[in-house]
Amino acid sequence: MSLTLKQAEAAIQAAQQKAQELGVKMNIAVVDAGANVTAFARMDGAWLGSLDISIKKAKTARFFDMNTGEIGKLSQPGGPLYNIEHSNNGLISFPGGIPIRNKSDEIIGAIGVSGDTVENDHTVAEAGIQAIQ
Amino acid sequence: MSLTLKQAEAAIQAAQQKAQELGVKMNIAVVDAGANVTAFARMDGAWLGSLDISIKKAKTARFFDMNTGEIGKLSQPGGPLYNIEHSNNGLISFPGGIPIRNKSDEIIGAIGVSGDTVENDHTVAEAGIQAIQ
Amino acid sequence: MSLTLKQAEAAIQAAQQKAQELGVKMNIAVVDAGANVTAFARMDGAWLGSLDISIKKAKTARFFDMNTGEIGKLSQPGGPLYNIEHSNNGLISFPGGIPIRNKSDEIIGAIGVSGDTVENDHTVAEAGIQAIQ
Amino acid sequence: MSLTLKQAEAAIQAAQQKAQELGVKMNIAVVDAGANVTAFARMDGAWLGSLDISIKKAKTARFFDMNTGEIGKLSQPGGPLYNIEHSNNGLISFPGGIPIRNKSDEIIGAIGVSGDTVENDHTVAEAGIQAIQ
Repeated sequence: MSLTLKQAEAAIQAAQQKAQELGVKMNIAVVDAGANVTAFARMDGAWLGSLDISIKKAKTARFFDMNTGEIGKLSQPGGPLYNIEHSNNGLISFPGGIPIRNKSDEIIGAIGVSGDTVENDHTVAEAGIQAIQ
Repeated sequence: MSLTLKQAEAAIQAAQQKAQELGVKMNIAVVDAGANVTAFARMDGAWLGSLDISIKKAKTARFFDMNTGEIGKLSQPGGPLYNIEHSNNGLISFPGGIPIRNKSDEIIGAIGVSGDTVENDHTVAEAGIQAIQ
Repeated sequence: MSLTLKQAEAAIQAAQQKAQELGVKMNIAVVDAGANVTAFARMDGAWLGSLDISIKKAKTARFFDMNTGEIGKLSQPGGPLYNIEHSNNGLISFPGGIPIRNKSDEIIGAIGVSGDTVENDHTVAEAGIQAIQ
Repeated sequence: MSLTLKQAEAAIQAAQQKAQELGVKMNIAVVDAGANVTAFARMDGAWLGSLDISIKKAKTARFFDMNTGEIGKLSQPGGPLYNIEHSNNGLISFPGGIPIRNKSDEIIGAIGVSGDTVENDHTVAEAGIQAIQ
């Protein structure tokens, strides 16, 4: 089971709307169950460097089926997954990437958001997911 | 001058519609004047390998401000730009990538489409551009 | 709005002059608003390894529209952007990269300097920027 | 023996002047004897995709101590160096890259120019070299 483009576009629209409410400019990426980008949008004036980060957050969330921030807790110096960010052509392990589940709780993709504080990135990602479930 | 996300999304929607008319499944990428991805969509069931190709087509069209197929005419064995595809982390030099111009004829970005024959790729890219101009 | 080659060259000349005053040998890179290299100079005898670092500093400063050292404060172990350096084919998050603004306070590019202490790198970058504003 | 930054900058200025005479917009790169970039300039409005190509031309010319176009003659299908462009993170084997020699005929670096026809690229590269010898 994988999400559809229609679902990915709905997530991106909802995320954009939340970003506008917060007054922030985001890069928003949605990947499917195979961790391949399905849809992407960069809001006007959003950081150029967040393009790659938003995609890496979405991929990271699907690679390990957990929120990206969870991986960051394990990848610190002395932690069990220290520097796991070196794998897979670069992971991003701070908040803003979240797996997307269907009603049967199966993971069908992931969303990644980057462009402001990690708290706002996560909030906007959550808003995107709400549009699907 | 660079295109806006709103323009990029309009191009992607128009390209999707044309693809549906043709009964084909496309990856569609739009880059801005700086050759950075602004919006992207992969239609359900579209070739996974065309994800990267569509992005490279859009970038290639902006890198050299011409249709990607024009570069391919010059990069053949014995041609003046033989193997130019090795530059810029990989170019795509067959049809499907087209620069996007504003009403003042300034290049403000490019579109890249991949997923079917190069003729259909180009036709769908053209449809995307019509939505902007 | 993006800086011109003439502005970039003026920044590099001013940075070189400051480096000579300090008795240090620098790599100096200037990128435009699209984060693409516009001009570069490596002073005779400057560290070879600083070539890539100076370019990455300039790109990083433009990618996030802030001084590179600011990112380094956030990317430490336990910090909110831990290991962000893995994105964008490698960021540099210590001082020496600074966005370049025009008189309207719009960001039109960035400068990156590498070759000595990060304090000297930053000082030389600042001297480069003074030549433009 | 390697060229100095002063020599590299003289070559780039002379190349720019020739480009202006021809009415073309060029990316111009100079590498030292170690094939490391010493100086670079992208003229306003020059193709973005030629940034990487100009650097690869300069490196290719120094990697093999010959004009880049000579390598292209050998790298054609059926030729002795077929597809050598896959090495060294990408070579460019059409004209526009030329080794730089000192008065003792030692190679001290190379220049690479990209932005127009390969004939004009080569002509502008030659003009850059004249400023050094």
